[in-house]
Amino acid sequence: MSNRIEYWFDYVSPYAYLTTQVIEELAAKYGREVEWKPMLLGVVFKTTNSSPLTMRPPIMAKYHQHDMERSARFAGLPFILPKPFPINTQNTARVCLWMKEVAPQRVGEFTRGVTKAYFSGPAGLNDIAWLAEFVSGMGLDGAAAAAACKDEGYKAQLAAACEEAVSKGVFGAPWVIVDDEPFWGNDRLPQLEKWLATGGF
Amino acid sequence: MSNRIEYWFDYVSPYAYLTTQVIEELAAKYGREVEWKPMLLGVVFKTTNSSPLTMRPPIMAKYHQHDMERSARFAGLPFILPKPFPINTQNTARVCLWMKEVAPQRVGEFTRGVTKAYFSGPAGLNDIAWLAEFVSGMGLDGAAAAAACKDEGYKAQLAAACEEAVSKGVFGAPWVIVDDEPFWGNDRLPQLEKWLATGGF
Repeated sequence: MSNRIEYWFDYVSPYAYLTTQVIEELAAKYGREVEWKPMLLGVVFKTTNSSPLTMRPPIMAKYHQHDMERSARFAGLPFILPKPFPINTQNTARVCLWMKEVAPQRVGEFTRGVTKAYFSGPAGLNDIAWLAEFVSGMGLDGAAAAAACKDEGYKAQLAAACEEAVSKGVFGAPWVIVDDEPFWGNDRLPQLEKWLATGGF
Repeated sequence: MSNRIEYWFDYVSPYAYLTTQVIEELAAKYGREVEWKPMLLGVVFKTTNSSPLTMRPPIMAKYHQHDMERSARFAGLPFILPKPFPINTQNTARVCLWMKEVAPQRVGEFTRGVTKAYFSGPAGLNDIAWLAEFVSGMGLDGAAAAAACKDEGYKAQLAAACEEAVSKGVFGAPWVIVDDEPFWGNDRLPQLEKWLATGGF
């Protein structure tokens, strides 16, 4: 049994933002390591004809925005739905893939930080200059991060990651795979923790 | 502030079955009473073009069946997805409305019992004879319950209940409204409990 758990997410997902803040700590509590797996919901949504929650019929979109805000308060985290929303996050995901190579132990810090900035107020989540500055602020090479956004290698890696997500049955975010067991949604954290604590149930 | 909480559900909903088993006890813990509000998902789904989870694209339907089974284990409850599934539940809902008039203190017991039977093995959840026998087994008037299934008054009450659900923004089940605050899904029980415990957050 691997001690790694796969954590699939899109930087734009509000519910993934909540899981992102706690997943590494939760995993560590049970001797597990998180493999950060950025992907693009726009790609995986195609497998189920799904759509962003805020673009559903108005009655549903309104409920979900309210639920996102309440779920964040429940988790003790700030939450302001960004405008515009959703946005594409391919540059952020490519910086993540780059960081997994050059500073793998900082990926959690990066992912928690950029999502918290994005859901706390105006932040250029997918803007290359903003990303470079954020990375520089971490003491890492911002120029290299910016270059990664346009690098064909990281573009190909991200495309492959989306294909891998689809091949593993991932159709939403956040999505955790542990011991081949899939958990979809921030609201499945209690079940995930029971799984980690007991080895399956 | 009313001490009642509205609990909207369809007898066929697997996730509502899980909430059904605990909602009365949870409410009582915080000095609240449950108003049992049966409705038909087939009607409220129309407001959002929604569909039963098991009839979604295969990758999603498969995940949800697995999640229903795991969520039941997590709650310590039996769960076997009935076949066929889903079914119409208008007769069961009409018996519920009848019982709210003749034996309101038994509605929770009835609703927990028939759903537990339905999700534990073969059971004629919407079969009039089966419902009459179940009601008789509770020491109540089974023949009157059977008659309620075909009674124009209860038919009209159920239709009105579905309209009321739609007018209140209910688009799924289980759905709890407390102090005008909506909670959708069995996985929102932790937030609901915090709301009941704190008076809102």
